[in-house]
Amino acid sequence: MIDTSITVEKLKNAAKSDNKQELIEELNNIHYADLSEVFLLLTPEERLEYFELLPEEKAADLMEELNPQIQVELLDSITQDKAARIILHMPHDSVADFLADLSDTESESYLAKLPSRVSSQIRELLSYDEESAGGLMNSEVLRVNESMNVGDTLEYIRKMAESERVDFYYIYVVDRTNHLRGVLSLRKLITSPSYIKVEEIMATDVIKVNVTDDQETVADTVIKYGFLAIPVVDDYNKLKGIITWDDAQEVSEEEATEDFYASSGITTDIDEDEILLGRISQSVRARTPWLFITLIGEFVAVNVANHFNYTLEALPIIAIFMPLLAGLGGNIGTQSITIIVRGLSTGQISLGSSIYHVFRELRVGLLIGLLFGVIVALTTFIWKGNYVLGIVVGLAMIINMTLAALLGTVTPFVLKKFDVDPAVASGPFIATTIDVLGLAIYFSLVTVSLRYMS
Amino acid sequence: MIDTSITVEKLKNAAKSDNKQELIEELNNIHYADLSEVFLLLTPEERLEYFELLPEEKAADLMEELNPQIQVELLDSITQDKAARIILHMPHDSVADFLADLSDTESESYLAKLPSRVSSQIRELLSYDEESAGGLMNSEVLRVNESMNVGDTLEYIRKMAESERVDFYYIYVVDRTNHLRGVLSLRKLITSPSYIKVEEIMATDVIKVNVTDDQETVADTVIKYGFLAIPVVDDYNKLKGIITWDDAQEVSEEEATEDFYASSGITTDIDEDEILLGRISQSVRARTPWLFITLIGEFVAVNVANHFNYTLEALPIIAIFMPLLAGLGGNIGTQSITIIVRGLSTGQISLGSSIYHVFRELRVGLLIGLLFGVIVALTTFIWKGNYVLGIVVGLAMIINMTLAALLGTVTPFVLKKFDVDPAVASGPFIATTIDVLGLAIYFSLVTVSLRYMS
Repeated sequence: MIDTSITVEKLKNAAKSDNKQELIEELNNIHYADLSEVFLLLTPEERLEYFELLPEEKAADLMEELNPQIQVELLDSITQDKAARIILHMPHDSVADFLADLSDTESESYLAKLPSRVSSQIRELLSYDEESAGGLMNSEVLRVNESMNVGDTLEYIRKMAESERVDFYYIYVVDRTNHLRGVLSLRKLITSPSYIKVEEIMATDVIKVNVTDDQETVADTVIKYGFLAIPVVDDYNKLKGIITWDDAQEVSEEEATEDFYASSGITTDIDEDEILLGRISQSVRARTPWLFITLIGEFVAVNVANHFNYTLEALPIIAIFMPLLAGLGGNIGTQSITIIVRGLSTGQISLGSSIYHVFRELRVGLLIGLLFGVIVALTTFIWKGNYVLGIVVGLAMIINMTLAALLGTVTPFVLKKFDVDPAVASGPFIATTIDVLGLAIYFSLVTVSLRYMS
Repeated sequence: MIDTSITVEKLKNAAKSDNKQELIEELNNIHYADLSEVFLLLTPEERLEYFELLPEEKAADLMEELNPQIQVELLDSITQDKAARIILHMPHDSVADFLADLSDTESESYLAKLPSRVSSQIRELLSYDEESAGGLMNSEVLRVNESMNVGDTLEYIRKMAESERVDFYYIYVVDRTNHLRGVLSLRKLITSPSYIKVEEIMATDVIKVNVTDDQETVADTVIKYGFLAIPVVDDYNKLKGIITWDDAQEVSEEEATEDFYASSGITTDIDEDEILLGRISQSVRARTPWLFITLIGEFVAVNVANHFNYTLEALPIIAIFMPLLAGLGGNIGTQSITIIVRGLSTGQISLGSSIYHVFRELRVGLLIGLLFGVIVALTTFIWKGNYVLGIVVGLAMIINMTLAALLGTVTPFVLKKFDVDPAVASGPFIATTIDVLGLAIYFSLVTVSLRYMS
């Protein structure tokens, strides 16, 4: 890996000289994956200047790595002919992703510049839901007919390998009308005699996905089985494309980000890039829905507290322990949610083992609650010299922490059971619920023991 | 993918019959990755019964996927000779991972049963830090000498491919004393004439990692460049092994889990499996350190509130708004932390752009703070009929939310700057700090405006 900011400096210095050769060489020495990071730190003018100096193939590789805003910025600034030539060097799935972010008119103007065979393939990719296997797959697949033999297949692969566009991790075997019949690993191919027909050595129990499958399921499948790629078929078992491990990895990383966001109450309807770098109004929109729900929940908490205003007026000092109870309840509840939500998401926890985990977290919550309850009771007693107050605060702490751990465990399982993504809703919802319940328990305990306190 | 619980039922039914053939067939039809999920739902007795029925190669594949507890449970229950044979079918890195979890004596007893060539390779892997490239790599690499030609290399690969142990995504070219000279893609190899020497067509600017590199850096490199594998060298540039994309994917998933755990204050020193399924005492140990820090922080908050006890006694009603301020401050602060910590971890945010993000989050926090401040002020005024109280609560809300967004953004950057993992510490630390500051601000505002309130 390179130090991005040093590279940026080098490029800027090279760009100052009149002779562009040095800049071109510097650019050539940088891997396109590094270059995409460099581009983030440049001004739009610098980006365009450097981009125009790249050979078309490298420009295409770089395009794939850039975020949508910069892709549009660059392609809009060069001639449409050059843009079309660069697009022709990109895998079809990347082109479809890029075009999907544009308006229909803009997208059409690019498609019109492409050869009709390519544009019709890309149009098909655009017709699938962006979050489905169809929206993720690359339609360029290495496929051979079932009647071919090993020698011919190797010759064919050798020819295809010269174009850098097709991956040949696995060779897919189809019949005349493109129905998927089997799969052949390169390993099997090169270790078999050349006269054998591929249908005799191919594996027929192909693990495949449907074009309409959710991208998260697809990514989980690829990662679980450790595949380099997985074939995508339509309802008639016709081979439509493949999804490679790096696509799956990207989806898995996106899904982890969505889980992170959702667990802190950031809506996942708005794109991550938009939240990081887009308009402020989009960031505000992404963040307010759950804050509103928290607001409503906390108004309930305020009302609970208000309900006990006679108790509060009789002994105002009890109010100072409110943040202690809410803070620790919130923290242990969040821990439980995190463990369960993450476990459900990586597959280490399933609905089937929910009872085990509920009881486990209950025991953990009770143990930690007892520990902290005793500490808090003793501290309060020593500090305020009031043993009833100590007992009340300690007892509230035990109940509060145990309940928080329990709620934090049960809620994600219940959401999952009803097919709601447990990452959404869990975090802020639980914190607020614990605030409300914790206050009700604490004030009730204070109220019943008020006469023993003063 | 399969429905795990249905498969478990099927297996249990097949196991009931006297004729074991049906059970063996059922087991054979299940992919080992699915079988590892099935094994989680079985009793130890059932696991052992089914495991003994598997062919050794499949048993080895399955072993790789199982968690350490079940690995030990199974290998301890079969004869050491059979265990050694199964281990011989596993990749060396998986064996090293398994042995690393055992005591030295147990580990030695397994090593003693293996051929000395294998055991010495595994001993070398065991000598590296578990979280380093050396601890992650597989030492079985497809390497050819620089003086070989394309034809011989293809012949050699064909021979190696018959053993399923070596991956040949890339062919590494070394000199006589195993110094890494270059890399050759299979694509390049099969499209080159057979008389050419590999050193003439190999790429020499190999992206590689050192055995001592941190596994997280390695995983990021593999994923960033979209490699199928990356070579690992020692300080003398000698080729020691390779790390494949699925190892990188696993590390990346583990690191995401660690970030999740750390952000909710669960220590990452203790293994995830241990927290999910191990002894309760380990779960308690993983969760208490940060809860203690929260406890201390919240005691500070209690003291702040206690400091204003005259204000509280003069107007106890003000206490009921405490959860509202803490809840919303905590929530917006957590959102900011999540965005920054996740962005730093996926590489979409760098230290270089910290100023941009701090100002961005400040604006977002101020906008949302103003919105919620006005709502809370109006609601309080209408409800309690006290406009000064409404202004005080609303103003506290604005300051609190803006400050929370700011702190949630600045803290991860500062931690990163001083090379502390920003995921650790951020979550509970920020929530508690906001509680303390929020209370101080609110009570101060109430105190100075007390005489206008009643």
